[in-house]
Amino acid sequence: MRTDFYPSRVGSNAKLMKREDPVIHNRGKFDGPLNASDLDSYEDNGFLMLDDVFSEDEVDIMADQLKQTLENAKGEKSDTVVTEPEGDEVRSIFEVHKNNDFFSRLASNEHIVKAARQLLGSDVYINQSRINFKPGFSGKEFYWHSDFETWHVEDGMPKPRAVSCSIILTDNYEYNGPLMLVPGSHQWFVSCPGETPENNYEQSLQKQELGIPDQESLTQLFEKAGKRIETATGKAGMVLFFESNTMHGSSGNISPLPRSNAFFVFNSIENQLEEPFGNASKRPEFLANREGIKPIEPQPTFDKEKATT
Amino acid sequence: MRTDFYPSRVGSNAKLMKREDPVIHNRGKFDGPLNASDLDSYEDNGFLMLDDVFSEDEVDIMADQLKQTLENAKGEKSDTVVTEPEGDEVRSIFEVHKNNDFFSRLASNEHIVKAARQLLGSDVYINQSRINFKPGFSGKEFYWHSDFETWHVEDGMPKPRAVSCSIILTDNYEYNGPLMLVPGSHQWFVSCPGETPENNYEQSLQKQELGIPDQESLTQLFEKAGKRIETATGKAGMVLFFESNTMHGSSGNISPLPRSNAFFVFNSIENQLEEPFGNASKRPEFLANREGIKPIEPQPTFDKEKATT
Repeated sequence: MRTDFYPSRVGSNAKLMKREDPVIHNRGKFDGPLNASDLDSYEDNGFLMLDDVFSEDEVDIMADQLKQTLENAKGEKSDTVVTEPEGDEVRSIFEVHKNNDFFSRLASNEHIVKAARQLLGSDVYINQSRINFKPGFSGKEFYWHSDFETWHVEDGMPKPRAVSCSIILTDNYEYNGPLMLVPGSHQWFVSCPGETPENNYEQSLQKQELGIPDQESLTQLFEKAGKRIETATGKAGMVLFFESNTMHGSSGNISPLPRSNAFFVFNSIENQLEEPFGNASKRPEFLANREGIKPIEPQPTFDKEKATT
Repeated sequence: MRTDFYPSRVGSNAKLMKREDPVIHNRGKFDGPLNASDLDSYEDNGFLMLDDVFSEDEVDIMADQLKQTLENAKGEKSDTVVTEPEGDEVRSIFEVHKNNDFFSRLASNEHIVKAARQLLGSDVYINQSRINFKPGFSGKEFYWHSDFETWHVEDGMPKPRAVSCSIILTDNYEYNGPLMLVPGSHQWFVSCPGETPENNYEQSLQKQELGIPDQESLTQLFEKAGKRIETATGKAGMVLFFESNTMHGSSGNISPLPRSNAFFVFNSIENQLEEPFGNASKRPEFLANREGIKPIEPQPTFDKEKATT
């Protein structure tokens, strides 16, 4: 029987456990774009925001590609295409690193992949990808959660050795529902009460109902952070890396400003998915990649577009 | 028949109308605590934040009084006492300027009342008052609205010659759902689609369903504001004055930090309530004061407490 070092949804009690695994693996193994202070900051806080990865032109290209891709998916019937409850406007598309020429190149972007390798200390692959467009006025709140808690229980990710990369394609202000993160929370694992029913993912994409951390644990994480919450505000083009176990959430967005981003989860090639640690069956491939896993080769993203303009 | 200069909820169309009434009435008639730049800023933006009205000790006294008053109201059955859907914890109490010794003195606070007289250009009275306590994690979103739209249609307030004063008793950060305001929006009246049913107030206190501005008008206000939204963040004790017609709202609060405030609406003695301009009957006295109206005499608030400590 496997030992579960990160048990969650196994009873009615919540529990705050110290993380035993390292945050940055094999520091120094890879040279890369991140310097020592970037790495220290990621290790301490559980996230890192970079605003010098893409040029303004590149941001325009990405925003354009995102819009076109969503537009083209209109009317498409597929699990990977998510529309709003009312209307047929497309809000999210999953698996863009497999199904889309531009976004598969973006998922292999040399700056980003090399940074992910530095953080995870190994070759990396994409565990999940998506692009999101949220119009203004109606953005929904997302309550606090650790992605790793879900990935571990529902997808069988063994260890917190993955990093999410959000390429933010709209300006983020304090008033349009930016991501909020609790600094240092990645050092603790919140074991959540409850059990996972079958096909939880079908509704958890809209509203998280399980794997919800209890208020007492959240308060403790907040106090350990010096009563500080960080908001990911900044200009379009900002790149946010956050550790798989960092506690995060976001408020709704009643402002007129839309929000869009491209989102890639990099996992260590040494941390591939196993059987889920919870008692439900595996989630589908578009949420948790298991097939044809191979290390990503870093490559330039924009040469092609630049050449044709 | 009365002419309605601010028609709203009279059909299916939304409309953005220029405000014809002044923002500050009879400027110069009253000396007072607000200086010329305060007045200019209020006139331009439709709100004013002051952080030097109360001392730290006074903030502690107010927070204490608020907590005690809510505690004492536990189990009380009254329209003016609002509990959360689950549990019997008291979250808001209305009419505290009539029913509570301390808060009636606070409603007459010399600094605040004199400032309100400067803004409204006449003697003033309280049209509505309440104290609020919202715990962390679960604060609800409030969508954009103009208070004057409601007060005009549902309460018969003739003109936008009232000012809300929020004395904020907890630190407000960008991440715990602070009030958001659209600068300059008080210069425009958004005529909202729809009609007012009977007893709308019973549910509108929990969730606004009528008098909702349309997205096109909101976008126009936002653009006129230079695509700027202001958030009322700051230290406990901050006093926020905002004009009755200023467009405002707030995001939910998933942070662990509670929020509490004391809230007074000052109306000009020359702007007393008439018959509602909409077709529903009058709302109750605790939401819209009509009885025993007389000008407030400014007075010190804290002498009594200080003497006994």
